[in-house]
Amino acid sequence: MNTYRAAIRIQLRKQILDVQGKTVEQALHSLNFTGMTDVHIGKYVELNVSAASKDAALESVKEACAKLIANPIMEDVHIDLSEA
Amino acid sequence: MNTYRAAIRIQLRKQILDVQGKTVEQALHSLNFTGMTDVHIGKYVELNVSAASKDAALESVKEACAKLIANPIMEDVHIDLSEA
Repeated sequence: MNTYRAAIRIQLRKQILDVQGKTVEQALHSLNFTGMTDVHIGKYVELNVSAASKDAALESVKEACAKLIANPIMEDVHIDLSEA
Repeated sequence: MNTYRAAIRIQLRKQILDVQGKTVEQALHSLNFTGMTDVHIGKYVELNVSAASKDAALESVKEACAKLIANPIMEDVHIDLSEA
């Protein structure tokens, strides 16, 4: 078994209004960061995963995201795996 | 002025107990993802920033993180900039 470090970026799907992002964008503008636009806020998860191969590790992380970590209806998930 | 896309990963400092991460780790184990450990949950922010140069954009994003987006006492920030 090898151990991999998974870095998981989770963002709301583009079609869904990102209220938190809009709010932060307005706050940035009122702090004079006027050049900042299109703010999107998501989640970032890191975890170690033990698996026989990198492919098996990726499958396992995808399944964990679908079942628990992310909401597959509302969120997009991007997984990067590296050797731990 | 050029526009850059900033990808900001925010995580609790290693010394600080990540309660949310621990909870997700326990939930993963009870769903039989027993090979997953050392779970850390953070935030992921993307935004566009207009600036004269990449260095100026990075400085601006760092300042925005320190003032609003992250908590510099409790959180570590990692910023990646790319051409938008």
